[in-house]
This record gives sequence, C-alpha cells and structure tokens, in this order.
Amino acid sequence: MLKTLTRAAALSALLLATAAHAGPPSEGSGTAWDITAGLTTEIGQRLAGSDREAAARDWAVVRLKALGFDNVRIEPFTFDGWVRGPESASLTAPYPHKLAIAALGYSAPTPKGGINAPLVYFPTLDALKAAPDGSLNGKIAFIDHAMRAAQDGAGYGPYGAARRQGPSIAAAKGAAGVVIRSIGTDWQRNPHTGATSWSKDVTAIPAGAVSNPDADLIARIAKGGKPMILALQLEGKPVPKLPSGNVIAELPGRDPSLPPILVACHLDSWDLGTGAFDDAAGCGIITEAALAAQKEGKALRTIRVLWAGAEEVGVFGGAAYAEAHKNEPHGLAMESDFGADKVWRVQFDFGPGNAALADRIAASLAPIGVVRAGGKANGGADVGAIAKAQKLAVVDLSQDGTRYFDLHHTSDDTLDKVDPAQLAQNVEAWRRVLAIVANEPGPLSGN
Amino acid sequence: MLKTLTRAAALSALLLATAAHAGPPSEGSGTAWDITAGLTTEIGQRLAGSDREAAARDWAVVRLKALGFDNVRIEPFTFDGWVRGPESASLTAPYPHKLAIAALGYSAPTPKGGINAPLVYFPTLDALKAAPDGSLNGKIAFIDHAMRAAQDGAGYGPYGAARRQGPSIAAAKGAAGVVIRSIGTDWQRNPHTGATSWSKDVTAIPAGAVSNPDADLIARIAKGGKPMILALQLEGKPVPKLPSGNVIAELPGRDPSLPPILVACHLDSWDLGTGAFDDAAGCGIITEAALAAQKEGKALRTIRVLWAGAEEVGVFGGAAYAEAHKNEPHGLAMESDFGADKVWRVQFDFGPGNAALADRIAASLAPIGVVRAGGKANGGADVGAIAKAQKLAVVDLSQDGTRYFDLHHTSDDTLDKVDPAQLAQNVEAWRRVLAIVANEPGPLSGN
Repeated sequence: MLKTLTRAAALSALLLATAAHAGPPSEGSGTAWDITAGLTTEIGQRLAGSDREAAARDWAVVRLKALGFDNVRIEPFTFDGWVRGPESASLTAPYPHKLAIAALGYSAPTPKGGINAPLVYFPTLDALKAAPDGSLNGKIAFIDHAMRAAQDGAGYGPYGAARRQGPSIAAAKGAAGVVIRSIGTDWQRNPHTGATSWSKDVTAIPAGAVSNPDADLIARIAKGGKPMILALQLEGKPVPKLPSGNVIAELPGRDPSLPPILVACHLDSWDLGTGAFDDAAGCGIITEAALAAQKEGKALRTIRVLWAGAEEVGVFGGAAYAEAHKNEPHGLAMESDFGADKVWRVQFDFGPGNAALADRIAASLAPIGVVRAGGKANGGADVGAIAKAQKLAVVDLSQDGTRYFDLHHTSDDTLDKVDPAQLAQNVEAWRRVLAIVANEPGPLSGN
Repeated sequence: MLKTLTRAAALSALLLATAAHAGPPSEGSGTAWDITAGLTTEIGQRLAGSDREAAARDWAVVRLKALGFDNVRIEPFTFDGWVRGPESASLTAPYPHKLAIAALGYSAPTPKGGINAPLVYFPTLDALKAAPDGSLNGKIAFIDHAMRAAQDGAGYGPYGAARRQGPSIAAAKGAAGVVIRSIGTDWQRNPHTGATSWSKDVTAIPAGAVSNPDADLIARIAKGGKPMILALQLEGKPVPKLPSGNVIAELPGRDPSLPPILVACHLDSWDLGTGAFDDAAGCGIITEAALAAQKEGKALRTIRVLWAGAEEVGVFGGAAYAEAHKNEPHGLAMESDFGADKVWRVQFDFGPGNAALADRIAASLAPIGVVRAGGKANGGADVGAIAKAQKLAVVDLSQDGTRYFDLHHTSDDTLDKVDPAQLAQNVEAWRRVLAIVANEPGPLSGN
C-alpha cells in the first residue's frame, strides 16, 4: 500500500510537471545560458577525443577571448579513448523484445553482427560476486540494482559500482558479455552510458547498459523462471592515443604574485545527448561567475578558468592539468559538474588558518538559501588531482542532484532540461564565493 | 518571467515525481493488471499485421477462455499496412547533430541509405500551407507546433493535424520529405510515431517525427538563420494485405434475446514501446470490469468484449467488426483507449428514452469522483463505426489524459507507466457502469 501511495503521489507530481513543462522550453539569458545554449546547439555531443571535442575547444577559445579573458590557450594532451559503434540488443527467448541499450565506455567490441548467449540474471552486484568462477562461461551476465534519486546524488557511489566494477567481475567469471541496469533514476527508455574499468587480470568483454524499463522487463521475465537468450551487438571499441586538450583562460588579478583561484568544468560530454547538464552548464556557471566577480574592478587574485578535456572517460584533462601545472602554486580550487539545478549546500576543505574565511563565505551564501554543512569538500574530478597534490583550499557548492541521475549520460541531457532561473542562482552563488576568495590577500590552504 | 516561474514550478513538481518514482515500479494485482503485464511482457510490441500481433491474438484466446469467457474466437481480416525499416536522421549543416527520429506510419521509403536535402523550417502547419507550390522541390519540410498537455487531451485534434495532414500538404508542394515535431507533450528524446494519411492527388514521400528536444534544437538553429541540411533515412514502407483480426469473447446474459453490451479496446500497438498505456491497459480494464459486473450472478444482457486488431494504423478492426456484425442488433457500446490514469468524467450519447438510465449511471459514479459532463459521448475509434451505423447508446468514461501524450506512440509506453491504483479505479468505474447497463431490460439507443 505504501508503494502504491508513493506511486500515486509521484504521478500527481508528474502531472503537474508535465502540464507545466509541455510546450517550448524557457529561454534564458546571460553568459552562462549563452555558453550552455551555444555548446549544445553549435557543437552538440563532444565525446572525448572526437573531432567535436576539438571543435568545442576552438569554439571555447573564440568565446572566452570575446568575453575578455586573457591568456586563453589550449593545452593539448593525448589519452587512450573509446569510440561508439553500431549497437543493439534483443531478447530472443523466452519472448522477443528489442531492448534500448548503450555500450559502456571501454566496452570490448562484439564480433560484427553480435553474439547470442544465455542471459543470467543477478539481482545485485553482490549476487554476481557470489557466482562460482567459470559459471558464466559463454553466458551474458545481467546486473540489476535498486538505485534511488537523492538530493546529494548519494546512490551514485554504491549503485555506480555495477557499472564501474561489474563488467570486470563478470569477465573474471568467464562471461561472454555483461549488461547492467542503467545507473539512473528515471523511467525513460534511454540507457545511461558511462565508463567502466577493467582489472589488470581480466580481458575486456562487451559491456552495455539497458534502460530502466528494459531492466524492469528483464527482472519480470527472470522472475518467471524461463531461460533468456540475448542477441547482443556492441561494436564500440577502445582506440589508443586520441587527441584532447584543456582550455584555460584567465582574468588577471591586481597582484600577480598571489596564487590564482582555479575554477573548473569539463568541456567534453558523452555522445548520446548534447551534454547540457553534464557539463556545458558548469562551464557557463563558472565563466559568468568569474566575470561577475570582477564587475566592480579587478580582483586581487587571478581567476583561472579550466574547461577540461576528456573528463567523462577517465578525468584525463584533470590529470594533464595537474602534471602541467604541478610546479605552479594555486590558491584555491572549485568545480561545477553536477548539473544546473539550484545550489543548496556549501562545504569546505580549508586549513585552520582559513576558518574565518569559511565563515565569511558561508555568511555571504546564507541569504540565498545555501546551507553550510560539515564534511570535507572534495573539489570534484577535474581539480581533484591538483588539489590533492598541492593540498589546496577547496570550496564545494553542491547542486540539487535529485533529477541529475535521470539525465546523466543519456540522450536526454539536452538544453531544455536547464532551468534558466536555477542556472542564474548557480551563477550568483559562485559569484559570491569568488568575490570573496579572489580578494583574499592571506595564504590559502586545505587540510 | 512568467515563463521562468512556470518552468521552476514544473521542475519542483518533477523533483517530487522523480524522487518518488525512482526504483522498481509498483506491482499491481488483479485481472486488469495481469492482462496489461502479460501482454507487455510475454508479447511486447504488437504492430498491426505483424507476427507479434498474431501471437497476441492467440495469447488473448487462451487467456479469455481461462477467465471463463464463452464464444471466444478470432475474426480475421486483412488490411493494407506498413512496416518499419532502418531509420535515422542527422543534421549535417550548419552543425552536425544526430537526431532522434521515427518514421510515421505509411511513410514512403527513402532510397536505401537515405537522402540529403535542405531542411526548411515552418513554425506551424498554417505556415506550411502558405508556402507557394513548388517552393519545396527537392527540400525537406520541417513542421513545428506548440502542443500543450491537457486533461482531456484537447491538443491532439488541432496539433495532431501536423502529423495527419502535414506530410500530404508538404508532398503537394513538391517536398522530397517531411519531418514534424512529435505530436507529444514530453521532453524526452523519444519520438512519437503514428499514422499519416495521403491525399489521393499526392505521391507519398518519406515522413518522420523527431523528439521534442530535437525539434527545439531545429527551432533554435532556424532562428539563427543558417541553412540546414538533413540526412534522412526512413526505410519503412507500406505493405499490402497484411493479416489481422479481432478477438471476441462473451459473458452470456440471462436473456439472449436482448442485444449485447459491446465493450472494446485494441490489441495491436505501435512498435516502439510495448503498448502498455495504448492499449493493453484498456483490454485489462474492460475485461476485469466485465467479469466483475457479473460477480453477483449473470447479468441480464450478454457482455461482449472486443479486443480489436489493427487500430493504430487506421481502425481496420473497428471497420471489420462493424461490417461483420452489421445485421446484429447491439444494446450499447463503450471503449477504453486513453491510457490507465483515473477516470474523471462520464458522458453519454443516449436517446431521450434513456435519460433516467443516464441519471442512474451518473449517480453510481459520483461517489468515486467521476463527474457528469455535457457534450456527446463519441465512443472511441473501435466502436465508432458500429455505434454510428446502428445509432447505439454510448457511454464514455474519460481518463485523465494529462500525461497521455507524454507516452503516446513512443518507446516509453511500457508497463512501469501504469499506476496500479489508478488502473483499479478504472476497473471500478467500468464495473459500476456495466453492472447497470447490462441489467437494463428496456430498449437502449443513442441519438
């Protein structure tokens, strides 16, 4: 009954949402919106290593120069990447069903045309782990899970393991392929892609994710007990030494001797959507906020904007940045890479000497509804390496992630999902933080 | 500002909905649920004329007999149908974008591999109508519109014209192809298919629908004014004389001399989803309600259940039924084909002699929140022909259609969208009506 009531409540809310969102999407304005709309319209998908990611870098250079940034440049690097190929999946027994599937990044390719094999259902990653070695020889493993939406995205860690580690575990047990329930909280027929990683001791196998409704179908059929056969075609494959690069631009501060404030987003996207939420909006937010923090004149410190390359496939841009700039001191690091819904929380990784600064930042954010929380800021993927190497001060502005994993890595990550009002709230929160930290004369450090 | 606030309200509602619906879908129970789950799981898509529609008929016969129905049979017919083929669409200029597209039913095929042609944007069907003859020679027309969601599905009539008539109008003006904004109210990357029809004086051309986010993208690019080129592959094609059939089953009444009560749904579905909302749920609702109306013993009149074939592609089952049964008197007709959300309204087409009967039905429905409305019941597609030919009494139980056109004819029409609680409310509303009309001894007639 609780379940039924919950579903009914969900539907009521959905009706409201549907009624209101139908029709042409809202048009935003301002630099954050223009960057988000421009990247998703004029560039579109920007898979790491692709010519579209390269086009995005060129687009970024032109745009950042036009916005008045200095020292705008591309810092190129190469990385071992992955390209998507033809892909499809169909149950052929006990009932014929075409499934909505997407290969995971770094999936091995099936032979041309695909494979046919029994599909073995595992309700959880732990159930797969418990399967005897060799028991999956010649079979395809299906990994189910029960991720729920959460404001802080809490499910991504534990449930995301099905994508990050599940394929490797299935391969170790001899599986010919692996399919997971998408790491996502929506009920659309749009699978969620994302990178998997392979243990050193296994040979990569074809690995894909089906949409949640398709996973529901597989779970229902598995419950009935009739053997399942899957026809699986995933022709995407790894490709070594692809080109990528970080785009860097600066708003020089009044005192060049002070280490800069580093603010990051990532420029690449997965290839199924146009990467509006992930992460064109992040680039828009940090860039408009950096400009806005200087509205009343140059800040004391330089604000350096990093639009990182090749994040989705393994944070290669963040690693390249940390390596290239390892001998250069930094003042503080921040990142925006969790959509464009409202900022609701601020967290810090500040050393004892910066306690008063944290208080000032929190006080500045309180009037716009951002709460200060305990726990340590982690900085995010792209600034993670440099922040760790230099023990940087870090501020995290957490966006509401309740619907983030509805859209994450799917074809549905498009501009219409970005709410101009919430995007503007993000910019304002970032502006408040940057206006303070970029004018801080004293030393900055993390723990 | 209003727009922005509306979007913000929509997002708030969506957050609630998302948080609640995430995770495994609710499991229902009872005959209506079992039929809906069974058809969508064991059969899946049931495109008219396909072997899956044939499998659905056989499944229906077994199931209806097992439920205790009499005179269970298939009444076969043939019709000129359509089959889907490989399909894809990409903008190649001014920016490369892969689009989410589905061919419309009765689209002509492109040559293998597709065509490349300029894409011409029309904001409305009227704008296309105003284009000079011949102005679209060698071009692909794009038809936009601004359909909104509505409880009674009001937008489907006017905006649906873009799908039903738009392709024919574009063909008359010389277009090499036509693409429309999906007739739908969602913001998913899932196009809405559906049949188009061709005027006698035009040659059919390739015709497809892109998803709403893709249409937004096209509209944005069109606004920028740079010429668009579309690579369009739609290899689906018409096929003559496909097999279909109506499944008919009866609960015989105590007085075989009284004309039967006819209750209908359609068994076929579009091929992109599994046809849960459209219309497995309708078959579930009418069937459980018919059985439930007899719980206290046989009704006076026979209740005849019609699971019609080949509705989506042109209501061929309804026409075949009307022809096959034209000499047989009927008492009253009803149909369920608008999803599975709650019944909120009842309307009648009753002759003057049945006014008191309408009052009794309305009084029986009022306690479960179904309001009586003016206007004339139309009976729906599959009973339309027989109801018109015999001037039958008709009762319409209107389902809430606010989200119906989010799902309609898309890959998202799957079992998880059916809310067990609302499905049960449908059954109860139908049971109340059938318990009254199937026990009505007096003559029944429409206007």
